[in-house]
Amino acid sequence: MNKTLENFKEYLKRIKKYEQASALISWDLQTAAPKKSLEGKLEALGFFSTEAFRLSTAECYGDMLSELSRPEIFDTLDDGMKVTVRRGYRDFQRFQRVPQDFYTEYVTTSGRSEKVWEEAKLANDFRIFAPSLDKIIAMTKEYVGYMEPDKDPYEVLLDMYEEGMDSVTIDDIFTELKEGLIPLLDKIRAAGRPDLSALEGTYDIDAQKKVQNLLLSYIGFDFDAGGTAESAHPFTATLCRGDIRVTNHYHETHPISSIFSAIHEGGHAIFEQNIDSSLADTAAETVNLMGLHESQSRFYENILGRRPAFWIPIYGKLGGLLPQFKEVPFDTFCRAINDVHPSYIRTEADEVTYCLHIILRYEMEKAIFRDQVPTDQLPALWNDKMEALLGIRPGNDAEGILQDMHWSDGSFGYFPSYLLGSVYDGMFLNQLEKELGNTDTILEEGRILEITAWLEEKIHRYGSMYNSREVIQRVCGCEISARPLLDYFQKKYSRIYGF
Amino acid sequence: MNKTLENFKEYLKRIKKYEQASALISWDLQTAAPKKSLEGKLEALGFFSTEAFRLSTAECYGDMLSELSRPEIFDTLDDGMKVTVRRGYRDFQRFQRVPQDFYTEYVTTSGRSEKVWEEAKLANDFRIFAPSLDKIIAMTKEYVGYMEPDKDPYEVLLDMYEEGMDSVTIDDIFTELKEGLIPLLDKIRAAGRPDLSALEGTYDIDAQKKVQNLLLSYIGFDFDAGGTAESAHPFTATLCRGDIRVTNHYHETHPISSIFSAIHEGGHAIFEQNIDSSLADTAAETVNLMGLHESQSRFYENILGRRPAFWIPIYGKLGGLLPQFKEVPFDTFCRAINDVHPSYIRTEADEVTYCLHIILRYEMEKAIFRDQVPTDQLPALWNDKMEALLGIRPGNDAEGILQDMHWSDGSFGYFPSYLLGSVYDGMFLNQLEKELGNTDTILEEGRILEITAWLEEKIHRYGSMYNSREVIQRVCGCEISARPLLDYFQKKYSRIYGF
Repeated sequence: MNKTLENFKEYLKRIKKYEQASALISWDLQTAAPKKSLEGKLEALGFFSTEAFRLSTAECYGDMLSELSRPEIFDTLDDGMKVTVRRGYRDFQRFQRVPQDFYTEYVTTSGRSEKVWEEAKLANDFRIFAPSLDKIIAMTKEYVGYMEPDKDPYEVLLDMYEEGMDSVTIDDIFTELKEGLIPLLDKIRAAGRPDLSALEGTYDIDAQKKVQNLLLSYIGFDFDAGGTAESAHPFTATLCRGDIRVTNHYHETHPISSIFSAIHEGGHAIFEQNIDSSLADTAAETVNLMGLHESQSRFYENILGRRPAFWIPIYGKLGGLLPQFKEVPFDTFCRAINDVHPSYIRTEADEVTYCLHIILRYEMEKAIFRDQVPTDQLPALWNDKMEALLGIRPGNDAEGILQDMHWSDGSFGYFPSYLLGSVYDGMFLNQLEKELGNTDTILEEGRILEITAWLEEKIHRYGSMYNSREVIQRVCGCEISARPLLDYFQKKYSRIYGF
Repeated sequence: MNKTLENFKEYLKRIKKYEQASALISWDLQTAAPKKSLEGKLEALGFFSTEAFRLSTAECYGDMLSELSRPEIFDTLDDGMKVTVRRGYRDFQRFQRVPQDFYTEYVTTSGRSEKVWEEAKLANDFRIFAPSLDKIIAMTKEYVGYMEPDKDPYEVLLDMYEEGMDSVTIDDIFTELKEGLIPLLDKIRAAGRPDLSALEGTYDIDAQKKVQNLLLSYIGFDFDAGGTAESAHPFTATLCRGDIRVTNHYHETHPISSIFSAIHEGGHAIFEQNIDSSLADTAAETVNLMGLHESQSRFYENILGRRPAFWIPIYGKLGGLLPQFKEVPFDTFCRAINDVHPSYIRTEADEVTYCLHIILRYEMEKAIFRDQVPTDQLPALWNDKMEALLGIRPGNDAEGILQDMHWSDGSFGYFPSYLLGSVYDGMFLNQLEKELGNTDTILEEGRILEITAWLEEKIHRYGSMYNSREVIQRVCGCEISARPLLDYFQKKYSRIYGF
């Protein structure tokens, strides 16, 4: 083996160790660490992330990347190493261009801004957050300006969270979605909401945890390569190869929440668990493609999990663990998990209005980055857009522009990936049905693991070897389109709401 | 501040970070890691322990220690730094004398030997383990011979686990104990075992966990500075300042086991939680004094936890969580937790015969290190000693010499510290009663936290600032003696067994 390649691989393993330590400390902080250890944990987390960053920006690392990027060497690398060198060199060069002092200030400002956002949300007052938001917008523009001086800042941000994605593509997709979804939502609203009082009650938390384990096993989560814990908000964490964990949160009066969080995070985790072991220690092993990742969690949660057919083989088991469900007619349960109605908070939205929540944020981000709309005008703009898209107007900032934390730390450009995930799902569903047959039949017969095997074969095993656009081309043989998702919504909800 | 001192403190913090990562990975491995992550976790554990070791043996570290050890500087240090520099320099010099190649081979051999021991225990055949034991004995002698060339190897080992302890002291203490305990055990055996059939049954594991939480809170464990988990064997782990965790294991038919493991590990954890924050980042913050540490876990478990008075305020609560105890008369419960009888396995022994188990191991270690008894004669020697001390003879190696893992990785000299802990407890109990009054009265009145406060004030807060001999001198104002422990046993068991 080429000596530089050998050294490079050893160096990558070292970086991975620091990242692994950071991941475990961060997991521990969110699931188990007692409050008096907070300072000690954060200090350690800072230490290991800084070490990893230091190694990824060291001159010797850049020299190896430059050497391995020379065509006569690069062409001899295997696919995993090619993507590792390509992304590694791109990121190294991007970071090289960011002045050290500016970067430190940016990180500090983000951290402070998050705290101010928390305070503002609690006080329900955007004016508290406005100066921080102003600053973080300006600094984010400057930050990506250093990284990619010749590109439009918002394009750089979109590409950071979903490699290969751009606003022209997103504009097309989101416009089509908007035009289809607003009239659909009108019809759903006109049909009225179902009576869900049969679900009211108190559901034992320990039993909800057992339901989570049942669901995870059912959809194909491997407990020999992962585990579960409780946290403030559900998330999935990759602690190391063979250790992908999911968390959940539980509400005594709202078991549907932990049930669908379990399926959603399970989808993320199954993706990570199914990445082929031949990609170990390559960049393809890490999936930073947020849209693609979200497509897998949402495929399980929405495309599969909200179908009556999904529940036919296991509704009895659900009632075995949470006896209240024995009293809930199956049809009522299915109406409850597909109860579409406009609401203020994105994270509590159903699968249809969720799309409009994201479109709102995407339009806001373009207003900020392209139209330079002044910060003090943003809350009103948010409320206007909410009214136009969802037909409701937030009564205050906490249920309006202050609800999400993403902007407080500069994560502009992240939101669109949530919806792109659903758009990809419409396409994956089409293709799956072409190859495996009717989804409802597969689910009714309890053969969901055949779907997981299909997703593994087509998508999961490759990790982030290909970007989402390439994955769709490989799996579906065409360009990204919003049509399949719209068709899916139209067909599903016209049947449920009878129009 | 002296520039060297400043650098030294920074350097120590760096070492601590690696140790903290190792501690967390190790905790995760034992409590949560799924089996497919084993390789990845062990690799990371190896990486961070090696980094910590590398830093603790680096030349620049030795230079700082040498500089800070110069009397004109050393005398200006505060007490915490004095003990840090003194121990740090001693350990640095010890390790410097160990040839690198030998050390690597020793570590590898220990690891391999542990596996062979496991295999031998499973096969119940000492002959499988004999060659490994032979090698590990020879290498351990060589290892400590490098570290302290002018000292007797077994003395070096004793001092490694209990600083300041020596075999002359232990000989005196253990001889006195043996002479007192063998006739006491004869009397107990003559009195016959109690009828404990009222305890038979199946006890819910989740409820046992709630009992553990109840007991931990009751004795003074701070859940804001710690937590719990399940593992194969109970242990206590210091993950970082403000995060001391305990584990437990649960048997459906034997709730007494998890109850007393909870109290035992709780004692270890309370000691660590109560170390004064002014000792942060000094060597005194780490308590490697195994005898002293064990004295605290055993004080809670045996001296307090096995007293009827301990249970008077909480027996009703125990029955609330594990309803079977409502049917067990209080007196029967108290007899069950003080059921003294000879048995083969140390970890299952009662507080009286436990002492003889340790004396047996101490005598075996002296036979190995002083009398050079050949390895193939050790099983018979073990069985002879067991017969002499406990009046029973193991029927096979698994319930004899193969039961403990300590020797397999070279931890000779560790066993005595378990019993020293109980010896110290006899003395602490005497002193506590002089200062606070009758223990039974305090416990009956539910004022156990006053005892925890006394232990904190007298012992815990100092961490390992003083060695056990010094602690006893400071707390009790006298030399170590076995008399108080013997008196405690005599008084307690003559009452229970009526002789």
